[in-house]
Amino acid sequence: MNGFGRLFRLTIFGESHGASVGINIDGVPAGLPLTVEDFIADMERRKGGKQKGATPRQEADLPIFKSGIFNDFATGAPITILFENNNTRSEDYQKHRSHPRPGHADFVAHEKFGGFEDFRGGGSFSARLTAGIVAAGVIAKKIMAPKDIRIEARVTEIGGNKDIEAGLQQAIEKKDSVGAIIECRVSGLPIGLGEPFFDSMESALAHAAMAIPAVRGVEFGTGFAAAAMYGLEHNDAIVDTKGTTSTNHAGGVVGGISNGNELVYRIAVKPTSSTPQTQNTLNWDTGEISEFSVKGRHDLCVGLRAPVILEAMTAIVLVDFLMLAGKVDRIWNA
Amino acid sequence: MNGFGRLFRLTIFGESHGASVGINIDGVPAGLPLTVEDFIADMERRKGGKQKGATPRQEADLPIFKSGIFNDFATGAPITILFENNNTRSEDYQKHRSHPRPGHADFVAHEKFGGFEDFRGGGSFSARLTAGIVAAGVIAKKIMAPKDIRIEARVTEIGGNKDIEAGLQQAIEKKDSVGAIIECRVSGLPIGLGEPFFDSMESALAHAAMAIPAVRGVEFGTGFAAAAMYGLEHNDAIVDTKGTTSTNHAGGVVGGISNGNELVYRIAVKPTSSTPQTQNTLNWDTGEISEFSVKGRHDLCVGLRAPVILEAMTAIVLVDFLMLAGKVDRIWNA
Amino acid sequence: MNGFGRLFRLTIFGESHGASVGINIDGVPAGLPLTVEDFIADMERRKGGKQKGATPRQEADLPIFKSGIFNDFATGAPITILFENNNTRSEDYQKHRSHPRPGHADFVAHEKFGGFEDFRGGGSFSARLTAGIVAAGVIAKKIMAPKDIRIEARVTEIGGNKDIEAGLQQAIEKKDSVGAIIECRVSGLPIGLGEPFFDSMESALAHAAMAIPAVRGVEFGTGFAAAAMYGLEHNDAIVDTKGTTSTNHAGGVVGGISNGNELVYRIAVKPTSSTPQTQNTLNWDTGEISEFSVKGRHDLCVGLRAPVILEAMTAIVLVDFLMLAGKVDRIWNA
Amino acid sequence: MNGFGRLFRLTIFGESHGASVGINIDGVPAGLPLTVEDFIADMERRKGGKQKGATPRQEADLPIFKSGIFNDFATGAPITILFENNNTRSEDYQKHRSHPRPGHADFVAHEKFGGFEDFRGGGSFSARLTAGIVAAGVIAKKIMAPKDIRIEARVTEIGGNKDIEAGLQQAIEKKDSVGAIIECRVSGLPIGLGEPFFDSMESALAHAAMAIPAVRGVEFGTGFAAAAMYGLEHNDAIVDTKGTTSTNHAGGVVGGISNGNELVYRIAVKPTSSTPQTQNTLNWDTGEISEFSVKGRHDLCVGLRAPVILEAMTAIVLVDFLMLAGKVDRIWNA
Repeated sequence: MNGFGRLFRLTIFGESHGASVGINIDGVPAGLPLTVEDFIADMERRKGGKQKGATPRQEADLPIFKSGIFNDFATGAPITILFENNNTRSEDYQKHRSHPRPGHADFVAHEKFGGFEDFRGGGSFSARLTAGIVAAGVIAKKIMAPKDIRIEARVTEIGGNKDIEAGLQQAIEKKDSVGAIIECRVSGLPIGLGEPFFDSMESALAHAAMAIPAVRGVEFGTGFAAAAMYGLEHNDAIVDTKGTTSTNHAGGVVGGISNGNELVYRIAVKPTSSTPQTQNTLNWDTGEISEFSVKGRHDLCVGLRAPVILEAMTAIVLVDFLMLAGKVDRIWNA
Repeated sequence: MNGFGRLFRLTIFGESHGASVGINIDGVPAGLPLTVEDFIADMERRKGGKQKGATPRQEADLPIFKSGIFNDFATGAPITILFENNNTRSEDYQKHRSHPRPGHADFVAHEKFGGFEDFRGGGSFSARLTAGIVAAGVIAKKIMAPKDIRIEARVTEIGGNKDIEAGLQQAIEKKDSVGAIIECRVSGLPIGLGEPFFDSMESALAHAAMAIPAVRGVEFGTGFAAAAMYGLEHNDAIVDTKGTTSTNHAGGVVGGISNGNELVYRIAVKPTSSTPQTQNTLNWDTGEISEFSVKGRHDLCVGLRAPVILEAMTAIVLVDFLMLAGKVDRIWNA
Repeated sequence: MNGFGRLFRLTIFGESHGASVGINIDGVPAGLPLTVEDFIADMERRKGGKQKGATPRQEADLPIFKSGIFNDFATGAPITILFENNNTRSEDYQKHRSHPRPGHADFVAHEKFGGFEDFRGGGSFSARLTAGIVAAGVIAKKIMAPKDIRIEARVTEIGGNKDIEAGLQQAIEKKDSVGAIIECRVSGLPIGLGEPFFDSMESALAHAAMAIPAVRGVEFGTGFAAAAMYGLEHNDAIVDTKGTTSTNHAGGVVGGISNGNELVYRIAVKPTSSTPQTQNTLNWDTGEISEFSVKGRHDLCVGLRAPVILEAMTAIVLVDFLMLAGKVDRIWNA
Repeated sequence: MNGFGRLFRLTIFGESHGASVGINIDGVPAGLPLTVEDFIADMERRKGGKQKGATPRQEADLPIFKSGIFNDFATGAPITILFENNNTRSEDYQKHRSHPRPGHADFVAHEKFGGFEDFRGGGSFSARLTAGIVAAGVIAKKIMAPKDIRIEARVTEIGGNKDIEAGLQQAIEKKDSVGAIIECRVSGLPIGLGEPFFDSMESALAHAAMAIPAVRGVEFGTGFAAAAMYGLEHNDAIVDTKGTTSTNHAGGVVGGISNGNELVYRIAVKPTSSTPQTQNTLNWDTGEISEFSVKGRHDLCVGLRAPVILEAMTAIVLVDFLMLAGKVDRIWNA
């Protein structure tokens, strides 16, 4: 089941080397101005090939609107956006079909879908599907624009190194993929978004963030460090009647609900499974372990592409909570 | 919205100092044997008052069945379970209504619900609502019993100390609450549970885990450590046709789907907000900051109660995935 | 799965002769005043025993609030309401366990739930569960009260007779149960509730109405008569810029969306399966057909109790649509 | 919100005169063989232009697969199908934009979507969106094929006339659109599909059927006639241990659950709003009532196209119930 959201509802689809990837977005308010130009900046941020350590595969990644947009405005009906797959080199993948790639979904997909899965590239598991996520994020951000909510994610560590350039350079020298930490901060959120328990802000954001391929952890505010802290040290004193706190260990969420302070959370991204290094793994044809190396075109650090995806996921979750709270202002600029 | 799950569907309700807390569970298969005795062991593990550092508040916490069970078997209709609140001392809370407690939901609840929230204890935000979660977990575990899936969570760190006794003792000496790390391991899972993207195993487990009060982070396998690793080091080589891997950095989930190896994940629990220490925080009556100390009866380390709750959440998520995959064997022993 | 609604979300539970029937209602806005007295009028309308042709079984049917209400106001947390079953005579049902009653769910329940179903009375299929529906309807009506939306349902035919007294008298004389038609009218609805296709106003109302036990059909406006009409005759001319139509064949819904004219729809209720007459049906013990007569205490015309239930279902659906449209005014009188 | 279904889940999208109409279908089991040829027969049944009284608008209506199908088999990932809109004559619609057409959604769409709706043809309200429904129905039927469940819908009345040819001829002579009744019968259903109350078989089928444009009523078994019957007459005696009943007044559903007898239900379709006759209605430009006649290309009797759509809706609902019951056999022929 590939849907997400209550009032701002996504259905994601497509395959890395199939006809297209895309997304259907239900719940976009009528009257939101939307053109292809709105998508370019974030789609560029998501694309590989421009940064050191990013995949040389190039797709134009211009959104193709198939429904829900008329005369450059959202109609209120569901919006369908496609991204065509033109620049595929599926033969790269056919070749190593005999090896379920370590760290990839090849093995579990084969078990789950009985061999009918589209095994080319990552198939329906591919990070290429995040194109649709980023597109939905563009729309979510635009819906929220009148609220002056600012969402910004950035890489804070690569390979354990807080100097990002240096961390990346080390991976390039090692000719190996590498992990990263991404932090997302949101200012301007109203107090009161989220619910106790199952629809807590943290539950929704963690759900969305863990859906991003290669994410292995998520933490809010002090996060894992909180496990080593004491109460007096961790509690954020409330210092005024607006709820401002002297510290922000909570990362802007208390009891599952936004408290009006900055939302701060982080994700851990593992090193790309597609390392250029030679690996030993099962050969399906022989049933034995043999040497194997990934060809294809891949990122050394998928973390570099992750900030815009994490921003998109954050915007998707937040716009849904804003809609649930009846807090979307419907006055947009084109 | 307080529901969770698709085929094994929970609705949680109640307040810490109201008439009761409880849970409604839809999707329990007809014929599952269920008696009060089935719940006692896990309800005891969840209760405070038996361990050093746990709250002296005592509730019998025997489940009261209001629907869906007949002659000691599930009927197939929704099961409603209540836990009565007998041992409440609401006057403790009435007193400090003038202070929104730091780290608690008092302030956000007041903003969100306009003062109509049940402010006694944690109200609907209280960890007391996890009684219903543990009860649902008992049922989920029992449904899965014939599959020989073993779920076990335990405290691995208190206050940054891997010697748990010592970590707790330090908090007692400091007269302060303290954080903890809980690890959950599941063996015996079939390959193929979960979906790519929004219904990934990690998304569902993180969603559920982050719904537990005081949880600030969740990580799978190597988790945040993966952010500092390289691909060759992180990839788990597949060593046989059953999908066994030589290492288990993935923590048993690849591409959002269980891979048949042990599921391993951890949560970070912050120190209880209700520290016995004196704090400075806003006084709603005066609009100024003043000294304040929590009376009530509280845990120094809620982490001590968390393992059985995390097991319950895990069981709830897994039984739903098993049902979605059509993999529940309906042969139970009473 | 026993849930319904998006933002005003119900979970229904209980059995006719179990501990209780009840309902959980998520999404009730904080600040709605609610006391037991609010429920009495509609609960009385639903009860048997006061009218000719209604069951002599008497239950007090006072709602017991288990969560979500504090100091006579909704807190914003889920509301759980129980109705206790005190006046049960289960021995009536034990006796004819050997016969799956014609027109009842006995046979299908046994097949579906493998004999574990609560077979006493209607078990979880009982019309007694509509007590929870009526209670939810009371809350839904009260939420809508500031909008001046009036919902009124009434019996328009009994046994094919538009003279209701006469139709009922005929059934009493025949000592047999009898069917009825109920019409529901709603004035004061804003234009624009509902969506094209799957969330059309008609789809939602039909879904809810067909969930009422014994309902066999639902029609909007001209309904089945429309099938024999021509376009020029059926089309409602729009006569002003508010959308008023000269006729109301559409029954207030066009394209799945309320058009501001009166909403008009009808349901057909079959005769109660529990006729006092002797019937021939399968005897499970012998595998042969034998004579059988229902004891228990039953209505001759369940249709008499249906108007308040249909009003409740209508209110439940409409309040959800109003919430989705952000059109709930939160200013209530106690 | 334009989604439907639990395990077989549809998202419908598109506009009559936009780029395309289409559907996303989540939950199609991996390994189902699917080619364009599978869709041709039902798509032809849905198309206008072949029958007397059907619209002369012609679209090829060949499904374009955008995701979820690989090498002629479903992969298990969501399937996206588009139908291109080539044969549009939007200028027909631009002209009468000044009149909200009687019986159409023009007026309510304008109020609901603030003028941003795609007003060309029926926009997102168009019956053209049923192309996606029929495509989903083809897939649902194919999934069920190994169960030997037969779904068949047919027109039983046109304009009140059971001689269908004569009823249609009368409309042609009157140069007016006309209503119809469609009956759907399903044999081979297992006992036990559906749930009491909100997920009753009747609720789900009525929900889906009322989502078809122009449907004004739905009834099961004896339907509205049941309102004029007595219990002894209406009850279906069970005559064997398989649950066979001597009569089938229930139409195959008791207590919301299939009873193994033939499922029988009917819908009432109103006359097409787009009658060729001249009508009086509001002119938005002048605010006054004036004469108006629909140009465009339309059906005299949409009922003629409805059987395949009703079959599709029925198949969609039934395959979801079969999946919920774990009763889909995964052995298909190409």
